[in-house]
Amino acid sequence: MSKILRVNMTDLTTQFESVPEKYKTMGGRGLTSCMVCDEVPPTCHSLGPNNKIIYASGIVTGTAAPTSGRISIGGKSPLTGTIKETNSGGMAGQKLARLGIKAIVVEGQPKEKGRYWVLKVDKDGAQLLPAADGWLGKGLYETYPLLFDKFGEKVAIIGIGMAGERLMSNAGICVNDPQNRPARYAGRGGMGAVMGSKGLKAVILDDKDGPGVPIVNKEVFDTGRKKLVEALRTHDLTKPGGALNSYGTAVLVNIINEAGSFPTRNFREGRFEGAARISGETIHETCEKRGGVGTTGHGCSPGCIIRCSNVYPNLDGSELVSVQEYESVWSFGANCGIDDLDITGELIHLCNDYGLDTIEAGVTIGIAMEAGLADFGDGKKAIELMHQIGEGTPLGYILGNGAATTAGVFGVVRCPTVKGQAMPAYDPRAIKGIGITYAISTMGADHTSGYTIAPEMLGVSGKVDQFIVEKADMARNFQYATAFIDTSGHCLFIAFAILDIPSGLEGMVEECNGVLGTEWTVDDVGRIGGEIIKMERAFNQAAGFTRVHDRLPEFMKYEELPPHNVVFDVPDEEVDKVHAF
Amino acid sequence: MSKILRVNMTDLTTQFESVPEKYKTMGGRGLTSCMVCDEVPPTCHSLGPNNKIIYASGIVTGTAAPTSGRISIGGKSPLTGTIKETNSGGMAGQKLARLGIKAIVVEGQPKEKGRYWVLKVDKDGAQLLPAADGWLGKGLYETYPLLFDKFGEKVAIIGIGMAGERLMSNAGICVNDPQNRPARYAGRGGMGAVMGSKGLKAVILDDKDGPGVPIVNKEVFDTGRKKLVEALRTHDLTKPGGALNSYGTAVLVNIINEAGSFPTRNFREGRFEGAARISGETIHETCEKRGGVGTTGHGCSPGCIIRCSNVYPNLDGSELVSVQEYESVWSFGANCGIDDLDITGELIHLCNDYGLDTIEAGVTIGIAMEAGLADFGDGKKAIELMHQIGEGTPLGYILGNGAATTAGVFGVVRCPTVKGQAMPAYDPRAIKGIGITYAISTMGADHTSGYTIAPEMLGVSGKVDQFIVEKADMARNFQYATAFIDTSGHCLFIAFAILDIPSGLEGMVEECNGVLGTEWTVDDVGRIGGEIIKMERAFNQAAGFTRVHDRLPEFMKYEELPPHNVVFDVPDEEVDKVHAF
Repeated sequence: MSKILRVNMTDLTTQFESVPEKYKTMGGRGLTSCMVCDEVPPTCHSLGPNNKIIYASGIVTGTAAPTSGRISIGGKSPLTGTIKETNSGGMAGQKLARLGIKAIVVEGQPKEKGRYWVLKVDKDGAQLLPAADGWLGKGLYETYPLLFDKFGEKVAIIGIGMAGERLMSNAGICVNDPQNRPARYAGRGGMGAVMGSKGLKAVILDDKDGPGVPIVNKEVFDTGRKKLVEALRTHDLTKPGGALNSYGTAVLVNIINEAGSFPTRNFREGRFEGAARISGETIHETCEKRGGVGTTGHGCSPGCIIRCSNVYPNLDGSELVSVQEYESVWSFGANCGIDDLDITGELIHLCNDYGLDTIEAGVTIGIAMEAGLADFGDGKKAIELMHQIGEGTPLGYILGNGAATTAGVFGVVRCPTVKGQAMPAYDPRAIKGIGITYAISTMGADHTSGYTIAPEMLGVSGKVDQFIVEKADMARNFQYATAFIDTSGHCLFIAFAILDIPSGLEGMVEECNGVLGTEWTVDDVGRIGGEIIKMERAFNQAAGFTRVHDRLPEFMKYEELPPHNVVFDVPDEEVDKVHAF
Repeated sequence: MSKILRVNMTDLTTQFESVPEKYKTMGGRGLTSCMVCDEVPPTCHSLGPNNKIIYASGIVTGTAAPTSGRISIGGKSPLTGTIKETNSGGMAGQKLARLGIKAIVVEGQPKEKGRYWVLKVDKDGAQLLPAADGWLGKGLYETYPLLFDKFGEKVAIIGIGMAGERLMSNAGICVNDPQNRPARYAGRGGMGAVMGSKGLKAVILDDKDGPGVPIVNKEVFDTGRKKLVEALRTHDLTKPGGALNSYGTAVLVNIINEAGSFPTRNFREGRFEGAARISGETIHETCEKRGGVGTTGHGCSPGCIIRCSNVYPNLDGSELVSVQEYESVWSFGANCGIDDLDITGELIHLCNDYGLDTIEAGVTIGIAMEAGLADFGDGKKAIELMHQIGEGTPLGYILGNGAATTAGVFGVVRCPTVKGQAMPAYDPRAIKGIGITYAISTMGADHTSGYTIAPEMLGVSGKVDQFIVEKADMARNFQYATAFIDTSGHCLFIAFAILDIPSGLEGMVEECNGVLGTEWTVDDVGRIGGEIIKMERAFNQAAGFTRVHDRLPEFMKYEELPPHNVVFDVPDEEVDKVHAF
């Protein structure tokens, strides 16, 4: 029987509870968002005693379902003030599921500041252990090995870095990858600061001899799994040797740049002259040329058949960093005017080490450059700025709190955020649908909340012109479908295959039915996803958000983006149509 | 004929316009708020090209009406994101009025950042002059004399300091006092940053041979003026030799401390063991004892008959600072655990010099102490922290952006702000009415938007128990009356007299009728004030504010304030009743 683990950081107790009926068919984002709505006062301070942080694996996570290792982490975000679900690959999702734990709920707050604990969970139960001094105030490349020494190489670690210990609003939550690097992140929304505010340095999951994930209807599950595997192995983007597998997510660099939508130098331009040098193709070539540990086609989580991650090598073949993702090579690359993967790699490494989200961090450095703290293109200075965060200087505290804080402190008007969260690597002036997604997402600017890039750039589910503004229906449908995928525990990248291949979509639903014993059809995907979004919006509304907050930054409405010289001209009415029913 | 002066900082042009009919009976806050509502898009960025800054004297300002030298400054606030009116005494209000200028509207923004202009206005017109390098990047105690050298000793200067040049959200707007000190401030809401964002270093007003303020009905005006003068000269708080005249506003220190409502060490306690040492009585004694230039009963503006200001002397009788106000000796004193007027005086001097609001600055230092940057009570360190703002270090930029930014950057949950603006010197847990005022003010936490302290602490208009929570009607009435007083151009301190002495209230209305030719009665005070508040609320609503934002910080609802050990227990429903009709 699956359980909920409740951890009270005020009195340092843990307790297992049975799963209420209403949560039994939930998982991942659906579950974290529902529990946040049920238990967290929407107007509470994100770093105060009344916020909670909730960890939940997806519905099929821990089974043989392909590419389904996601863990969702929810609560009220210190970055946005909205509800937040941020999910990650890595080793934690499957282990949590296989421990028979539906969700971990961490609540309360130690009275004494600056003390930290580690939550150890295994088949025998849960324990809060005081964090050793040696685990604190250090980079995660130093801390994670110490934790593996202590708890064994086969545990999963969900931890925070110095950014989280310092309650910085750009603190992400780290999950070890299959080689136990601190390399996978539930990065967005500053949930690492919420962990920090609760005095929780890490959650250690040891699933040895755990009960595993029960499957109610094995036959239905297997049928579904086969359909999804087949779809993933067929689609050009997701298949072995396909675009993602060969070049990683950075295969998008040249595509988005060519489309004139690749935000360059803090969203001043839509095309970067150095794009080719930070592209997925160049990552691939460099791995081949430099050899050593360098590789593309790396998997971030067991059971993934897309394998879009990479390990990027130094000149001598030793490891610089895993992973150079599209969003990260963009945020530190084009967005800072930097065209050198060795520099983006070092900057990403620092994010992993300090415990930061790379999108927010890169946009923050872009803002710092806009404020005159460094010149665009100055990689050396960008690295120095990032080091400030690790050193905990006042400037580091500013930068560690993300783009909107940095813009506020230095009076920068050109701040590409929505609800306080930095925009990802698509300029909405030149891709209107993703602009609607940024605007209406329940979590601030977030491409993964409704990845309309699929049709607008990649032709998935049919090509749609990037400049058409009537995309409310598209944005809504993507949001709903995404909320379901985030609930299932699959990586969002299965979307490419299941949008184009109907049997793949059926497969995903059948996997869920197999695990849960439900009888959902593909029509339930939108229904269930829509219910999640409506719930999240209700939380935000109660927290004080209105349609006025569902807007892009003002400067994008009057400043034209080259080379197409376009502003964001989607009418507010079109944006509001997304949630008008 | 009165005119509106429109100044376009994009193309550096100035233009006089006739006054539209609807503005003709307006002045001060009523006029600035109405023009902001008419001309500023509520969702614009406060520091972007679409915000405006509007200067308007009160209706009777520039006449012989007593204690009526106020100038209102309006726009969208970078500190709160709300509409903002902040008003000041000093020399500017009367000169602007006597130049026959109903309002100055500054709009647009220079394309080039970091360049500054000075707007010179005299009887012959208006000119934008490039600011000399020597006027920039320096303290105002150095800059103001240079400006007076250039433009003559008899001009008024409305200027910004380094904080405004740096677009810091706690930048106030300075007005010279009668001795040409940079000592009077339209401090709240960061409007100095809006001036800075427009490249406007100062407005110079030379009213020599100006047309003066026409009075439509001299007889009615004189009748009113006499009534108000008589009331002010009779009331114990406002009369010559009365409480305010003898001890200044800091006469409140012992009263509020005794009531257990004097926020101490960042609102941790309601009573300060060092209160007596920073009280108005001690200021008075020190002025007498040290002699030299030290004096209480100083007037901040010509024609004031209350004269509550002071000049505080050094040990040797030379000038330390003007003025040690209640709010300032509290914010830097009790709120930082500092019980030394020589230190609060130096900190206030730094605010005047850098161009900062003292309430926001003191609460910010309290937050910094809460974050561990200094110990409570460490005056030396408090001074060092303030110097960071002048030096423009990263820490200075944090602190210069005020309490909420500082709390955000350092992860401090106990942040006593509403809508991003720091609370003044009354802990709302122990004075419920002022808590309602803080919550529902259109401008963030602001005692002057509805000074219920008058009945709750001072017995003005009848004593009301501080702990009673049913005060929605009281808070509404005070807000409305205040909006009218802020429109008339009188100092808010006339409220004590006109609330207790009905003929004084009549006098204020008759003065306005005399100037404008209107036939308002005392019943119109609430009506007109209410219309202003409703207009301001409509702006805020369009800017994204809801009743969720009309709330005190969460910690005041669960953390008890000694010595009465009370939380803020006014029900949300009571707060919402203020604007429920």
